[in-house]
Amino acid sequence: MSTVGVAAETASLPGDATALGREMHNLAARLLPICRSITGPGVRETLRILQEFIPIEIHEVPTGTPILDWTVPKEWLIRDAFIADSTGHRVVDFKQNNLHLVGYSTPVDREMSLPELDEHLFSLPEQPEAIPYVTSYYKERWGFCLPHRQRVTLKPGTYRVFIDSELKDGFLSYGECIFPGTTKEEVFLSTYICHPSMANNELSGPIVTSFVSEWIQAQPRRYTYRVIFAPETIGAITYLSRHLEYLKKNVIAGFNISCIGDERAYSYVASRYGDTLADRVARHALRAISPNYIEYSFLDRGSDERQYCSPGVDLPLVCLCRSKFGAYPEYHTSFDSLDLVTPDGLAGGYELVRRCLETLEGNFRYKVNCLGEPCLGRRGLYPTLSKKGSADEVKLMMDFLAYADGANDLVSIADRIGATVWQLFPIVAKLSQAQLISNLN
Amino acid sequence: MSTVGVAAETASLPGDATALGREMHNLAARLLPICRSITGPGVRETLRILQEFIPIEIHEVPTGTPILDWTVPKEWLIRDAFIADSTGHRVVDFKQNNLHLVGYSTPVDREMSLPELDEHLFSLPEQPEAIPYVTSYYKERWGFCLPHRQRVTLKPGTYRVFIDSELKDGFLSYGECIFPGTTKEEVFLSTYICHPSMANNELSGPIVTSFVSEWIQAQPRRYTYRVIFAPETIGAITYLSRHLEYLKKNVIAGFNISCIGDERAYSYVASRYGDTLADRVARHALRAISPNYIEYSFLDRGSDERQYCSPGVDLPLVCLCRSKFGAYPEYHTSFDSLDLVTPDGLAGGYELVRRCLETLEGNFRYKVNCLGEPCLGRRGLYPTLSKKGSADEVKLMMDFLAYADGANDLVSIADRIGATVWQLFPIVAKLSQAQLISNLN
Amino acid sequence: MSTVGVAAETASLPGDATALGREMHNLAARLLPICRSITGPGVRETLRILQEFIPIEIHEVPTGTPILDWTVPKEWLIRDAFIADSTGHRVVDFKQNNLHLVGYSTPVDREMSLPELDEHLFSLPEQPEAIPYVTSYYKERWGFCLPHRQRVTLKPGTYRVFIDSELKDGFLSYGECIFPGTTKEEVFLSTYICHPSMANNELSGPIVTSFVSEWIQAQPRRYTYRVIFAPETIGAITYLSRHLEYLKKNVIAGFNISCIGDERAYSYVASRYGDTLADRVARHALRAISPNYIEYSFLDRGSDERQYCSPGVDLPLVCLCRSKFGAYPEYHTSFDSLDLVTPDGLAGGYELVRRCLETLEGNFRYKVNCLGEPCLGRRGLYPTLSKKGSADEVKLMMDFLAYADGANDLVSIADRIGATVWQLFPIVAKLSQAQLISNLN
Repeated sequence: MSTVGVAAETASLPGDATALGREMHNLAARLLPICRSITGPGVRETLRILQEFIPIEIHEVPTGTPILDWTVPKEWLIRDAFIADSTGHRVVDFKQNNLHLVGYSTPVDREMSLPELDEHLFSLPEQPEAIPYVTSYYKERWGFCLPHRQRVTLKPGTYRVFIDSELKDGFLSYGECIFPGTTKEEVFLSTYICHPSMANNELSGPIVTSFVSEWIQAQPRRYTYRVIFAPETIGAITYLSRHLEYLKKNVIAGFNISCIGDERAYSYVASRYGDTLADRVARHALRAISPNYIEYSFLDRGSDERQYCSPGVDLPLVCLCRSKFGAYPEYHTSFDSLDLVTPDGLAGGYELVRRCLETLEGNFRYKVNCLGEPCLGRRGLYPTLSKKGSADEVKLMMDFLAYADGANDLVSIADRIGATVWQLFPIVAKLSQAQLISNLN
Repeated sequence: MSTVGVAAETASLPGDATALGREMHNLAARLLPICRSITGPGVRETLRILQEFIPIEIHEVPTGTPILDWTVPKEWLIRDAFIADSTGHRVVDFKQNNLHLVGYSTPVDREMSLPELDEHLFSLPEQPEAIPYVTSYYKERWGFCLPHRQRVTLKPGTYRVFIDSELKDGFLSYGECIFPGTTKEEVFLSTYICHPSMANNELSGPIVTSFVSEWIQAQPRRYTYRVIFAPETIGAITYLSRHLEYLKKNVIAGFNISCIGDERAYSYVASRYGDTLADRVARHALRAISPNYIEYSFLDRGSDERQYCSPGVDLPLVCLCRSKFGAYPEYHTSFDSLDLVTPDGLAGGYELVRRCLETLEGNFRYKVNCLGEPCLGRRGLYPTLSKKGSADEVKLMMDFLAYADGANDLVSIADRIGATVWQLFPIVAKLSQAQLISNLN
Repeated sequence: MSTVGVAAETASLPGDATALGREMHNLAARLLPICRSITGPGVRETLRILQEFIPIEIHEVPTGTPILDWTVPKEWLIRDAFIADSTGHRVVDFKQNNLHLVGYSTPVDREMSLPELDEHLFSLPEQPEAIPYVTSYYKERWGFCLPHRQRVTLKPGTYRVFIDSELKDGFLSYGECIFPGTTKEEVFLSTYICHPSMANNELSGPIVTSFVSEWIQAQPRRYTYRVIFAPETIGAITYLSRHLEYLKKNVIAGFNISCIGDERAYSYVASRYGDTLADRVARHALRAISPNYIEYSFLDRGSDERQYCSPGVDLPLVCLCRSKFGAYPEYHTSFDSLDLVTPDGLAGGYELVRRCLETLEGNFRYKVNCLGEPCLGRRGLYPTLSKKGSADEVKLMMDFLAYADGANDLVSIADRIGATVWQLFPIVAKLSQAQLISNLN
């Protein structure tokens, strides 16, 4: 019912957002061709490139290591793969696009008829130009993916199928950065590095997370930040198997970052019960950036929030997205490209994550130091001359003070009085300076 | 926000539902002519017929016994009653339809003029063909009920009024069945046997309850079931006066069963605060059977939930109905007949009660045994080949596991994930078999 | 879902409401010309006139006294003020309307040009006929207010500005009445007496409060009533600085009374969290009087609820209004006159406050004395003959008893069963008389 015109501030990207977006987009272009999977050299190469930006420590966990209910799988190496027709012409070639090969395909070198081959082909009749993305991590098989339009043109005859891959004991690799703060309380960021040549799902996640990490590193900070780059599912399970007790004790909010580089939506997947600090912070930041953001329930989960929010793990974590996995037509196809993911899209994703972290850093509980409304006038906090906007700021200040009763954190107060934390930060600073409020944290 | 297509299963009556419905309808036809009231031979005869189906123990409580705030009333015997015109012709005859006589009418044998007689007549101008149902349990009087159309044709003259009834010290009769389970925790069912020749209100209640009791008897069961057939109000008060402390200690959910035999609505009357296990179970079963069911608040109560949910009694009980008392035009008239109550209507009522009991029996709290999502694949619980529907079942399984944190019972989980307990029962069985979940109850 | 036709009773002003309204309106006419401010003779004169009606004790607090975060200001005396043109003609004259002078103006006696004068003039271009109300309590300055239509006609030339005022050490005056009840628990009423010649804001508040106080004095009463007439803000702060601990301990509900004399709206400003007894009572009374009343959140506050509900003070208080400060076009102008405030408007405001107090006085928690529904018939509480309306009363009685479980106060029960406390009072009386319920307070 507030009459104050403090509608949620719309996203004001900093002046260098475009430059930042272009830098991120360039990095995406560099990483796109690498053939990533849940293990193998593509993961390591990707982490090494990200190390140019932030101090990632790479961890290697041996095949066969028990991790919660799972086991670290064999490592997959892929050197070459193609289908050649009877003339030797490569009609499908992994080297052209690594989506052509089903992830974790076993080695093959055989001639076969089209009907036999066809049982190993995957295509999308409803998106006939797209190469689908298919994997078979936990059952040994092989296959190729191709545009449906091409598949129907394959002529009867003999084809040579060649896959020079290896499934062998090796390691699962993940990267970890820890940026210590003034407290042991932690903010946890997680993203993944197991998808081959697709842009939104999932180069946008590690790229935005890397650039946000650079920003974290440059900021004074209250919280310790823990940033994980891991293969999806199995990486999160591996990480939890090693750090669960510590995380449960110290993490106050976490964000899984995925599909965060297109320009269409802003969205988030709530935690299991939708009631954690991370949920409140994400909703607050999203409302400030894009009031029409989409809130998905935990029933729409799909990324590592599945592990981090599972019963007994219970980290206070949400998933931040622009167009969420499964919610855009290019998802899990070759159309998820650097046309879909743009500099502005990435810059918006970066802005969302940064705003969540700013919100957390500034989210103290405050208590007004006097009884009754304070006398702002004798402290120079009340405008002696009314000018456009000054009444709004006084109204916000008074509303903030009305709820600065020690029971509410800044996000709660802002939500209640219809303001953003960014509108309140300068007010809090003035009131603290005037010793009118105490910070209870 | 679930994307799973698990819309509430619509009622799938078991194959023999029609046969069952016909059996119930036949029993209704047999019981309909009996003149029941809150005491007297009609009650006993009804209970004796029901004993052919289930082991009802009949209890007799003497007139004058103090019961909570009340006293057991005199017993009413009725042998004959009529109004004869001056030619001796019986213009209104209790033997034609026992609704013709006001229940608990005192004996009369007198001639009187039409105006004097008229003060003792009851009819419904707005339903001129219907005989209304009128009683005067707690004030001694007499009267006759007749179609309004007939009433207006009565000619001036002298009428003989004859009622061969008796109000004498006797007994209040009620029936009780107890089906022991593996625990002392009880499910309480109550219905009533005090209405004369009307079908929905109230032969449907005792008939459906009897047939459900047969089913209970044939099932393995966790809970002990206590089933009461009593005259409305005074019977419930009598029963509470004898068993209140035990019921308060042991009943986990109760259902008053009334007006449950027509085909129009499914409905339920909530408990006093609408928040008991019985409420949650009734809503769940109703949503599965008939998503458009009607939920009445306790302000719309009218049957023995009035007693069982009263302050200090506080049993966790709701009232299950199809077209609720007072909410259908034939209510408390001779039109509440075996045309209104049908085999399918009774079978649907039976289905509703049975589903409530199935829900209760299967309503355990579960806790997943591992941290993070379990590896379903190595247990054969993940489809290796995708086929229509298998993804939905996996999605349900994962959603169930996500909330199997020991804090939620099965009904809560089902409601939260948009499923029915009947969809979850086979999933729970598979997961229990695989030792992936523990039953906490 | 109640089927009972007990829609909220609409306001039935007592037979003498019109007479009462006229008396209040007459008093308003008498008080209107007095030049009130936050201190000074106008406040004292107003209190002395109100003393004719109720036993107000006047308190005087010296300038400079520290009061919470504030200090009692200097006292302001004003004898005369005008702007005269070069012919000596008073073009703006305080003696015509005391709104012409900015409140707390410092003394001046000087000639000046129109441009210099103009910097001290206030008018409203969008309401060109209205004199605005302007004050400058906490910064020493001077100024005149006039209709914009007049301002634009002022001719260039020399004007004499004369303000015969004094700002000197003196006293802040406030009035206090205490009407002891049978308990030390208190109901707190507050209104203010610092506005010059305006009617709704704010003669309506002290006048309605005075007349309600007369009524309080004449009633048997459970609670002690404390009624404060003070200058807004600084008066409330002064009062809190002297009585806070006692108020916090004893006040169970409070009402700030402001802008309560026009005929347009009924409204209320909720307490800080909107969840106090005063909120529940105000909503209940408003629903009974005017179901379309407006509920403002605490973000729309503006009167002394700002002080009484501030953090650490936390009195359970709401603000009762008809057209709320800031929410009607005449607000803070000379148009806020005795045309806007009417006898009926004042009588409605009086009715609202009185109903809130009646609700509080009758708001006990009740517990039914028997288990199961009581036998109303043998106590003569059940109609033996049905007549129009009797079923409704029995339904209300049964609904009341159903929730008379000791957990709910009367307001809660009334709200829950869709009744008003005034409908329930006679029912409660009958049930108490029959010893069917106990009063738990």
